[in-house]
Amino acid sequence: MAFQKPTGTQDLLPGVVEKWQFVEEKARDLCRRFNYREIRTPIFEQTELFVRGVGETTDVVEKEIYTFEDKGGRSMTLRPEGTAGTVRSYVENKLYGEPDVTKLYYIGPMFRYERPQAGRYRQFHQFGVEAFGATDPAIDAEVIALGYQFCKDLGLQGVRVDLNSLGNKESRAAYRQRLLDFLTPMRDNLCKDCQSRIDRNPLRVLDCKVDQPKFEGAPSILDSLDEESTAHFEQVKQYLTAMEVDYIINPRLVRGLDYYTHTAFELKAQGIGAIDTIGGGGRYNGLVADVGGPDQPGVGLGIGLERIQLILEHQQIEVTTQKPLDVYLVALGEAADKEITRLLFKLRQAGYSADRDYLGRKMKAQMKSADRMQARYTAILGDDELSRGEIALKLMATGEQRTVKLDELVNELK
Amino acid sequence: MAFQKPTGTQDLLPGVVEKWQFVEEKARDLCRRFNYREIRTPIFEQTELFVRGVGETTDVVEKEIYTFEDKGGRSMTLRPEGTAGTVRSYVENKLYGEPDVTKLYYIGPMFRYERPQAGRYRQFHQFGVEAFGATDPAIDAEVIALGYQFCKDLGLQGVRVDLNSLGNKESRAAYRQRLLDFLTPMRDNLCKDCQSRIDRNPLRVLDCKVDQPKFEGAPSILDSLDEESTAHFEQVKQYLTAMEVDYIINPRLVRGLDYYTHTAFELKAQGIGAIDTIGGGGRYNGLVADVGGPDQPGVGLGIGLERIQLILEHQQIEVTTQKPLDVYLVALGEAADKEITRLLFKLRQAGYSADRDYLGRKMKAQMKSADRMQARYTAILGDDELSRGEIALKLMATGEQRTVKLDELVNELK
Repeated sequence: MAFQKPTGTQDLLPGVVEKWQFVEEKARDLCRRFNYREIRTPIFEQTELFVRGVGETTDVVEKEIYTFEDKGGRSMTLRPEGTAGTVRSYVENKLYGEPDVTKLYYIGPMFRYERPQAGRYRQFHQFGVEAFGATDPAIDAEVIALGYQFCKDLGLQGVRVDLNSLGNKESRAAYRQRLLDFLTPMRDNLCKDCQSRIDRNPLRVLDCKVDQPKFEGAPSILDSLDEESTAHFEQVKQYLTAMEVDYIINPRLVRGLDYYTHTAFELKAQGIGAIDTIGGGGRYNGLVADVGGPDQPGVGLGIGLERIQLILEHQQIEVTTQKPLDVYLVALGEAADKEITRLLFKLRQAGYSADRDYLGRKMKAQMKSADRMQARYTAILGDDELSRGEIALKLMATGEQRTVKLDELVNELK
Repeated sequence: MAFQKPTGTQDLLPGVVEKWQFVEEKARDLCRRFNYREIRTPIFEQTELFVRGVGETTDVVEKEIYTFEDKGGRSMTLRPEGTAGTVRSYVENKLYGEPDVTKLYYIGPMFRYERPQAGRYRQFHQFGVEAFGATDPAIDAEVIALGYQFCKDLGLQGVRVDLNSLGNKESRAAYRQRLLDFLTPMRDNLCKDCQSRIDRNPLRVLDCKVDQPKFEGAPSILDSLDEESTAHFEQVKQYLTAMEVDYIINPRLVRGLDYYTHTAFELKAQGIGAIDTIGGGGRYNGLVADVGGPDQPGVGLGIGLERIQLILEHQQIEVTTQKPLDVYLVALGEAADKEITRLLFKLRQAGYSADRDYLGRKMKAQMKSADRMQARYTAILGDDELSRGEIALKLMATGEQRTVKLDELVNELK
């Protein structure tokens, strides 16, 4: 019986995994430049953290989490997103006691029990940043600009930001009421999901794909923003303009999670025949307190790395998936075999990538192997050369061959 | 109510996470030089894979795995080690069809339900390599040399390899019988664990810490090796000698898992007052077939990264945990504030690490912040400078200050 990977998971193999390494290296370098430092939190957390930190009434927590009891009878959940664990860690480790804004990033696997479909995985991967401790709209703009620049660094085309403000608590409550006044009369004509959302979180009704056309005359949240909320939003826009970040205002943008205040945004890029959402985020001034911490503001961004891979492919952005080998060593005869092993190790110790045959193949097959590995050089050692303390070095691009002293091989490659 | 991380897990925060990044970068560069390519398999797999691939009678599978039912009623398990998933993926993706030896590495989290104690975590991390498809003893030696060089690259002191051979199936069976002949008469004097192991896997009795002194006269597996097994072992030793890898023969070394054949080894380094085991591995010629694949040989290595961190600390090996910032920008006044944001983004786009204040602090507090971030330069923009299109640039190490054109700032830093 052969085993298969679990439904909705992927194996990332050589030839593909390099595209993931490429994206992660870009993310890490981006964070270095923006002065965000990495945090790694556990793969699973207490279930209650996600109920509180993601929201009890969200689809994620209601239907999609992987929950299990550990052997001590505690309910644990594989993290479905990266923010809740980061906030928990920020609070537990008292990072709020530091004098500067706490700027963190994470990259890693997340888990949701999704119905299998193209581009949706049960184990998926996110890159995200979180900045805690500042209400300054400049940091909302920084987080947005970081996401924007990430797409630019990857070489993506048609990158754009959709921007909205959900205002402070008061503005959001005022809007909620205006929206209810609009939605309640049409309630019976809406889909079941919408009917249920009206009671729980009416803002998310506007997200509905089925009933979308019915909401054309819906009130805009931007008309409900109070003075403070409007001022914050204006500042964010001015900062984005100063940085020449390409954005549009989208008053319908609410995002799936409950905890946003003020800024909400999504990152978009050109996909196949449509504009794809790559990620998004916003400000969540109540979240840190919601999971038991002090009243510290936060703003964050999450980007789906599976989506990034899809768009890289759609946009035909080339990523090198095989690094050429520096040297392939060929031994002819048993004495040469041991000497090759010694040389191979010396080359690797000196920083070169090097390899040899392990299948007892003839010279011709070994040269093919060197070709497949895109070897820059092959070095061939027979008994004759060995007795003279020399080795034949061949530059594969030109076929040019010369003889070098065994002890000089490492230096010859420099 | 504040949340805590689950028992036996860790948060890796800025200031510590950089030590992990350092070790991982070393591992990745090592694998580049040895021509091993990364594979990423899912965090969880079907439970049955580990029962078959790790061994039903091992402590890991009997007591320590994290198992849960997914919503489809299938039993899934968080991976307790890296080899089983890699082998499953090698088989499922038919990598054995490739013409060269398949050389893979992985780095990532693993999960075992261990009793909490110093240095033992329920989520822990391993770096491992696997080479499939070759029986050549040169590749056993390569895998060992890779582990050895990893320790050297990290700067560890007192690095050594403990080496043994468990022989082929026939040799192992012959030894099993000789060992039973030795153990059976003393059975009643052994601890309960040993008594149970005698029936299931007598080789592992020799691992017992309680009964160790009673086994002085036990037969050595090396005396049971047949001609083929002896020849293989001799070759491995010759290759290691050729590479000047520091090793000793340890005939008691059997490793915890059931699937080893021929080569078994452990990597050791100087810990606090004792020699610590960093990792180990060996050859597992039956494993690929055991999990439903073709009869392909394999050899691998696994290294515990928590242990590496401990030894780095014991041996006081310094790792840079904070990268200095290139520039800290200070704005004096509201007009300067927007211009600073523009410049900051330009600097980051140009590859520099740069930051600013987000807490509305006075200049003095901002300069302290620049110091904490080890800023190489600060650039200060007031209304006067702004009106002249200039900015004051200060080299922090010397205090030397000069005025540069705003448009020239990026170039001035080169």
